[in-house]
Amino acid sequence: MNSIKFFRLVLILCLVVLVSCDKSTNKEVLVSTKETLFLAISEATPGTEIILANGSYKDVTIEFKGEGTKDAPIVLRAETPGKVFIEGVSNLMLGGSYLVVDGLYFRNGYTPTKNVIAFRISPEEVATNCQVTNCVIVDFNQLSRDKDDLWVQFYGKHNSLDHCYIAGKTNRGPTVRVDLKGNQSIRNFHKIEYNHFGPRPRKGGASGETIQLGSSFTSMSPSNTLIANNLFEECNGEVEVISSKTNFNIIRNNVFYKSEGSVVTRHGNYCTIDGNYFIGDGVNKNVGGIRIVNTGHWIVNNYFYNLIGENFRSPLAVMNGIPKSPLNRYNQVTDVVVAYNTYVNCKSPWQFGVGTNIAQKDVLPLSEIRSAIALRTEVANNVIYNTAGDTHLIIEHDKADGVKFKSNVINNQGIDFKDKNRFITSDFELTKISENIFMPTGISTEIEPYHGFGFEDIKTDLFGASRENSVSLGAMIAGQGKDPKILDKKKYGASWYDSEKPDYEANIIEVTTLEGDLAAKIAAANAGDILELNAGTYTISTSLKIDKPLTIQSKGTEKAQIVFDGKEDLPVFELNPYGILTLKNIQLSGNGKQYAFASLKENMSNHFGLSVRDCEISNFKYVLKAYKQTFAEEITFANSQISNCENGIELSEEINDKGDYSVEYLTVDNCKFKEVKSNVIDYYRGGYDESTIGGNLKVSNSTFEKCGGKEENGILLNTRGIVNVAIENNTFKNNKVKLVALLWGAKNNTHSNNKLQNSGEIRVEENLKMKLMY
Amino acid sequence: MNSIKFFRLVLILCLVVLVSCDKSTNKEVLVSTKETLFLAISEATPGTEIILANGSYKDVTIEFKGEGTKDAPIVLRAETPGKVFIEGVSNLMLGGSYLVVDGLYFRNGYTPTKNVIAFRISPEEVATNCQVTNCVIVDFNQLSRDKDDLWVQFYGKHNSLDHCYIAGKTNRGPTVRVDLKGNQSIRNFHKIEYNHFGPRPRKGGASGETIQLGSSFTSMSPSNTLIANNLFEECNGEVEVISSKTNFNIIRNNVFYKSEGSVVTRHGNYCTIDGNYFIGDGVNKNVGGIRIVNTGHWIVNNYFYNLIGENFRSPLAVMNGIPKSPLNRYNQVTDVVVAYNTYVNCKSPWQFGVGTNIAQKDVLPLSEIRSAIALRTEVANNVIYNTAGDTHLIIEHDKADGVKFKSNVINNQGIDFKDKNRFITSDFELTKISENIFMPTGISTEIEPYHGFGFEDIKTDLFGASRENSVSLGAMIAGQGKDPKILDKKKYGASWYDSEKPDYEANIIEVTTLEGDLAAKIAAANAGDILELNAGTYTISTSLKIDKPLTIQSKGTEKAQIVFDGKEDLPVFELNPYGILTLKNIQLSGNGKQYAFASLKENMSNHFGLSVRDCEISNFKYVLKAYKQTFAEEITFANSQISNCENGIELSEEINDKGDYSVEYLTVDNCKFKEVKSNVIDYYRGGYDESTIGGNLKVSNSTFEKCGGKEENGILLNTRGIVNVAIENNTFKNNKVKLVALLWGAKNNTHSNNKLQNSGEIRVEENLKMKLMY
Repeated sequence: MNSIKFFRLVLILCLVVLVSCDKSTNKEVLVSTKETLFLAISEATPGTEIILANGSYKDVTIEFKGEGTKDAPIVLRAETPGKVFIEGVSNLMLGGSYLVVDGLYFRNGYTPTKNVIAFRISPEEVATNCQVTNCVIVDFNQLSRDKDDLWVQFYGKHNSLDHCYIAGKTNRGPTVRVDLKGNQSIRNFHKIEYNHFGPRPRKGGASGETIQLGSSFTSMSPSNTLIANNLFEECNGEVEVISSKTNFNIIRNNVFYKSEGSVVTRHGNYCTIDGNYFIGDGVNKNVGGIRIVNTGHWIVNNYFYNLIGENFRSPLAVMNGIPKSPLNRYNQVTDVVVAYNTYVNCKSPWQFGVGTNIAQKDVLPLSEIRSAIALRTEVANNVIYNTAGDTHLIIEHDKADGVKFKSNVINNQGIDFKDKNRFITSDFELTKISENIFMPTGISTEIEPYHGFGFEDIKTDLFGASRENSVSLGAMIAGQGKDPKILDKKKYGASWYDSEKPDYEANIIEVTTLEGDLAAKIAAANAGDILELNAGTYTISTSLKIDKPLTIQSKGTEKAQIVFDGKEDLPVFELNPYGILTLKNIQLSGNGKQYAFASLKENMSNHFGLSVRDCEISNFKYVLKAYKQTFAEEITFANSQISNCENGIELSEEINDKGDYSVEYLTVDNCKFKEVKSNVIDYYRGGYDESTIGGNLKVSNSTFEKCGGKEENGILLNTRGIVNVAIENNTFKNNKVKLVALLWGAKNNTHSNNKLQNSGEIRVEENLKMKLMY
Repeated sequence: MNSIKFFRLVLILCLVVLVSCDKSTNKEVLVSTKETLFLAISEATPGTEIILANGSYKDVTIEFKGEGTKDAPIVLRAETPGKVFIEGVSNLMLGGSYLVVDGLYFRNGYTPTKNVIAFRISPEEVATNCQVTNCVIVDFNQLSRDKDDLWVQFYGKHNSLDHCYIAGKTNRGPTVRVDLKGNQSIRNFHKIEYNHFGPRPRKGGASGETIQLGSSFTSMSPSNTLIANNLFEECNGEVEVISSKTNFNIIRNNVFYKSEGSVVTRHGNYCTIDGNYFIGDGVNKNVGGIRIVNTGHWIVNNYFYNLIGENFRSPLAVMNGIPKSPLNRYNQVTDVVVAYNTYVNCKSPWQFGVGTNIAQKDVLPLSEIRSAIALRTEVANNVIYNTAGDTHLIIEHDKADGVKFKSNVINNQGIDFKDKNRFITSDFELTKISENIFMPTGISTEIEPYHGFGFEDIKTDLFGASRENSVSLGAMIAGQGKDPKILDKKKYGASWYDSEKPDYEANIIEVTTLEGDLAAKIAAANAGDILELNAGTYTISTSLKIDKPLTIQSKGTEKAQIVFDGKEDLPVFELNPYGILTLKNIQLSGNGKQYAFASLKENMSNHFGLSVRDCEISNFKYVLKAYKQTFAEEITFANSQISNCENGIELSEEINDKGDYSVEYLTVDNCKFKEVKSNVIDYYRGGYDESTIGGNLKVSNSTFEKCGGKEENGILLNTRGIVNVAIENNTFKNNKVKLVALLWGAKNNTHSNNKLQNSGEIRVEENLKMKLMY
């Protein structure tokens, strides 16, 4: 008998023992290796419960294939939920019927395929009536941003992802996608419920949705997917948090909390968006609401609070379509109903004709021109309350002539506003139910709700109370309010996982000029710690690896001096994944051939960040170099001097022209650039992609002197393709360039109060010709 | 009391009497004028039965508006079905609930609106649960072909058109259309059942469908319309008999009998085409089957007999799509199932890549190129029987690589054929059930049916027998066959209407040379009669009006001579609507300034036709002139001489460039053209429209001598845009032209065996640049 046979025999004996000992009909099998797991799966029958022993399983592909029954599913569960780790190059596939996966924790790794969890094994072996529950996937990112994957991909029918916590995806690809290719996956009635979608960092380009339901190529198919009772917290990946691209999906009772994006009916039709909470902070303009494309959607009973997003990110954005649109572009909005929603302290909540680009008809082909306004659309029975009055409740980027406004009531505090004929003003009150939740009360019952075709199907309100015999307008029936506890984390995600990070009190670590002390203390520090450098000179020969949030600052007011004598083309600070460096009050110099800061050249599986304040930087080849496929959410230079460098802030390596860029927010304030010869600021985004609406550059209160002399294109501040640019209150002196900047007028590019002496000019070009992506 | 008030009083008294006399709860109201009808409608309550007295109602718009109930509908019915005529400029609109219209006969007129019958009164007043039954609409045509209308237009939901006979539409516009604009009309579940759609003449261009379900602009909407148990007899309007343009429609158990078109899933998705009969005659290539565009259709249990159509009109035509197609063009075929169908004596029944036009990429924009092949499509469990073997069962205009072929069985009589690996050959038999219906029997039960995703939903066969426990392939379960009596007219249409025309024995009417005798006898003749002209000369000064089928011929073998001395630009024979003239063995001459034959210039509410045989025609300005918006199904010149005319056969006035043309079949055989100076044959079709696949020109065995001398464009036979052209066995002598013809190589244009002497050449141009229509 060889060892495998022996092993099998032992296993079978174990099974027999387990089965015979078990008082229930369940057959429990405890496994603790890949091999025993695979064997247990292959032998499982209805009712089998495979228990994965606590521990870490590395580089494992679990093909969970089996035929359970409704009453006796086959279960694969963690011995202790949260104590079973799937790590390394690993993934899970389910194929068959009535399978349950419970309690696994995916971390410290990435999938070898396109999915971490796939509800199929092959196109013919899909999952039906299968469930993934109580699991966690955190930071399970590919090593490069452009290496795309989907963490959970649905195939088949009647599958469920519930009570999971999923966060931290940085690479290309939606976090969750429902696939509809093939008759095996239509009318799927999948359920995505009670999950906590934790923070998804900004991706810096498209393809960073949290959930995508199908694709344009299956946008004609009935999906019938339900997304209900989930918490979406800071899902900032891109402009769409949920992208519905198929038909008859239902998005109900979810909470969108400070998420920088919208629920978008991007393709497909007849989506129901009912009873959701959209909560902003009144400050962040990137927090979105609902954006509408296509036909037949019902937007009812939703509650919008403190949203100030504009245009694509407005609380209700109704887009213009392309007449006879190609399959993958923007269909006209028709037959949409927006009824019984409540808007509290939202700025210009209703925007129509969003995305109109008729003005760009000279630089775009006709098949890209969004000129078709919404038709046969009804906006009725909504309630708006503004603590401070709003002069423009409706913004018509293009005409809302095809929209019927009926029985919409507003308290605008008596402040006059445009389009008064589209509203009924009334003096009702606001009652606080809880943090973020305010209920309009005392609306006159004499205002009769509009009753359009199909309105009888709006049977309940935001809280689930029956609308029968009620004439209440807005999302909440009068007098029915109780605290929905929308942020109670117990309601969402895996029961065993606590996504709240405990408060961390930063250690302050003193660093001496002793050779190696700085590097050692950086390595030893905890995330968030502060390294204080004693006065003196720190001569460094090897790059300092930053792979966590750290602050490095001079101990006193006197600047410590870091002098780099490392090799050519090496950075002083090597910014690794998760490396977020704050450098304060430091003098940093090189020999003219190295870099002050640089990302890794590859394997940047997570974002970096950089904040430079009160520093003096001189004699580098590059001040900052971010390589292709790297991304920082924020890069800031403030109150600093940068001088005698060949290149400045170089963020233009991401030239895939798919709308991607290298940093979300680049801020330069109160700095002095002197003799930076080229790429003083070089920040690039390529590709015509109307839904990539970053990045953001602000250059203010700064001086640029004798810079750009070697700039080949003759432009000092290169911002090509960046959507938001503001150049304000700067002084440009004796820079040998043709232009200080070439701004994109059609987008949010502005300049003001700059002084230009012997430095060319700032030119604004209304329409930029971009490479078409579609 | 004025007369109206008095009249109202009388009416109310009548009502009271009727109500009190009626033993049932129904309230019957007999009305015999428009006014009393309108009043009765306005006063109707649930259960009211409005009886329209026998007679003719002219120039009436009936707004049938009311609220009946399921148990007590409001009925508007003919006193005697078929004895109540709606004539003149008239129409019917229904708005409200539970209304029934029964027994009306629409004839001798046309609608003042876009509909003869509309299931709405206004966009807000649509019909729900309303029924039009037992009615007839015949030849209710607008006066001009381009004046478009729809005879029955559905709006609202749950309406029914059943047991009606509808035939003879010649003007632009589908006969029946379901409208889906607005939420009031989606998921309509309308029923179109047990109707007899009688002959619809060829229209000569697009927009001649018999039923159209929605339009491309609503192609994203769920329609759920049922078309069941109807007879479509010679519905020849255009290439589509039924054009499904929305989602989830069901086309079931219909009979398509010698109809020159197909059932086409033109837009929209997930159409079920189940258990229909497609019956051809083995001769007419225009009789079609099912043509597939878009996603998710199920083509099951259908029976195809004696179909020899090609390409667009093949029994199963699976089209290529345009990648990322614009909304109104051709989407790719995906996820289609073609299963359990039976094909008996059909030529090359399965054609894939239909409509591919990759070769035209130089003359068409990219957005018109159909290069996307069918994907994820399954063709399974079908049966093919060929009495004579077929060498090409499958034609791949483009590759069928995305199609899975499974368990398709064939008896090809041992004849070798291509793609054998896609079939299972077997020696089964054919059993005759009745005329046109043959049942394959004796197929080995060892051939296991393929079981794809969703196949379990194919629960019955063509005859409605359960498929449970059956392994039968093809449309019919073995041993379950009984005569379905598909042509039993009692099953379809209005019970009181007999669409069969009794055999007519033509009168032979002798005509003398006496002045006025010919004209008088033409006027007095019945349709189909034969006028025999005694030998001699008939001098005619006024055009002879032809408004019915007539034959005019010489009595003996000697040709009677018709000499026209009428005014300039008048025709000898004025072809009116319905005027189909056969002229035989006649000598016809003018003074060089008139026309031999011409249509009316306007008000051609129906088609004309012309057959000239054994005639001699000379000295006219035009031999034939067909004006704009006129149409003939057939025009034939045979064994005739045409000489000394300024112009020949002029059929090029239809220049709307929407694919329309003036004659379906133009045949010139064994004729001699001499000194016809221009437009010898001038036949035109304009506009790029791949689905207009006529007209047809055949020129054979003829001689053209000294013709075309004044032709400005230098082409003798002008055929621009005509899809089917054959020029065979002709002699061209001394014609001062550059080209005899310029043929369109990409279409079905051919030439062979022609002798050209001093007459230029025949040139073939592969791709013709046409005006884009879409």
